[in-house]
Amino acid sequence: MKLYDLKAGTNPRRVRIFLAEKGLSVPRVEVDMPGGENRRAHYLAINPMGTMPVLELDDGTHIAESIAICRYFEELHPNPPLFGANPLERALVEMWNRRMELEIARPLQEAFVHLSPYWAGKREQVPEAGKLAQKTALARMAWLDGELATRPFIAGERYTVADITAQCGLLLGKNTGTPIPAELTNLSRWFAEVTSRPTARA
Amino acid sequence: MKLYDLKAGTNPRRVRIFLAEKGLSVPRVEVDMPGGENRRAHYLAINPMGTMPVLELDDGTHIAESIAICRYFEELHPNPPLFGANPLERALVEMWNRRMELEIARPLQEAFVHLSPYWAGKREQVPEAGKLAQKTALARMAWLDGELATRPFIAGERYTVADITAQCGLLLGKNTGTPIPAELTNLSRWFAEVTSRPTARA
Repeated sequence: MKLYDLKAGTNPRRVRIFLAEKGLSVPRVEVDMPGGENRRAHYLAINPMGTMPVLELDDGTHIAESIAICRYFEELHPNPPLFGANPLERALVEMWNRRMELEIARPLQEAFVHLSPYWAGKREQVPEAGKLAQKTALARMAWLDGELATRPFIAGERYTVADITAQCGLLLGKNTGTPIPAELTNLSRWFAEVTSRPTARA
Repeated sequence: MKLYDLKAGTNPRRVRIFLAEKGLSVPRVEVDMPGGENRRAHYLAINPMGTMPVLELDDGTHIAESIAICRYFEELHPNPPLFGANPLERALVEMWNRRMELEIARPLQEAFVHLSPYWAGKREQVPEAGKLAQKTALARMAWLDGELATRPFIAGERYTVADITAQCGLLLGKNTGTPIPAELTNLSRWFAEVTSRPTARA
């Protein structure tokens, strides 16, 4: 088993933190994205989307998409449960993970892609779309700040994959010009806590 | 138990088809989105995102996000399995469902939101972002056409939630100016088949 990885990537980081929370270690292969390796035939045969992470099983099967990889490890190693411990919990963790993906991580990623000089000439940029995404992300952060007034973690009393998704998305925002506004004290408190876990450096 | 629904909505349709494939029936409450009901306090208390569908359980718990609702029913009624029948299958169905969401349904939705007169004055529109999304959707359809040359359904030999996600996304595209190009014969064959299932009208 091995993991095609990208040290700086937001989605690869989700899987690395997930594995660290499970106490698991998987050999990793860093893909040379700056050198274009992920767009060459040998990698596109592994994942036609050209993205990382991808988990390669010993029989050669490839599992792409960070959450698909996380779910696979959750089934093989159920403890600690990071997707919830019963059907209702699992539904609610899925709901919160989706909200963190769609409402927090996605607009922060879009703001990065459309506004950052890093992507100039590499991806088609629509600055107006980046600004709209940034505005959306800030509005959703304010909403999430209110949610976190009433509980320690995104989906409730326990750290779950929804926290991992949110912290990786917000870390991207922090590093690319859309940090958590200081007046959002609940969200800032939560972010300081989750990024202080030893697993956050995975 | 009841389902806050929107008859014309893409995500609500995913849940209705899923329930129909399971042979399940849940009382539905149509939310008056054109009349703005989903933005009023009583609905925002049910789902702060203001979106449909939402499943209300008998104890008053609300599960939002279409896939969270589908997963909940998959756990309660495992047959026929629509998320895969074992850990590896479930990982691969998740991978394919994600790809259908991110690569097919999402850009078609963005093209609709940014290009359609329907949303003028209701949502901030960036036509250039809509055109970019449309170009992406068409490129991904061409890729998916190649994938479907080798198997009957999106994730393999069986109809799964990944087919539901793709067919609902492509139905939106068809109805909003980005249909499947006729030369994509594998994708067209698959689309004709899945939309001929009795459940497609749910």
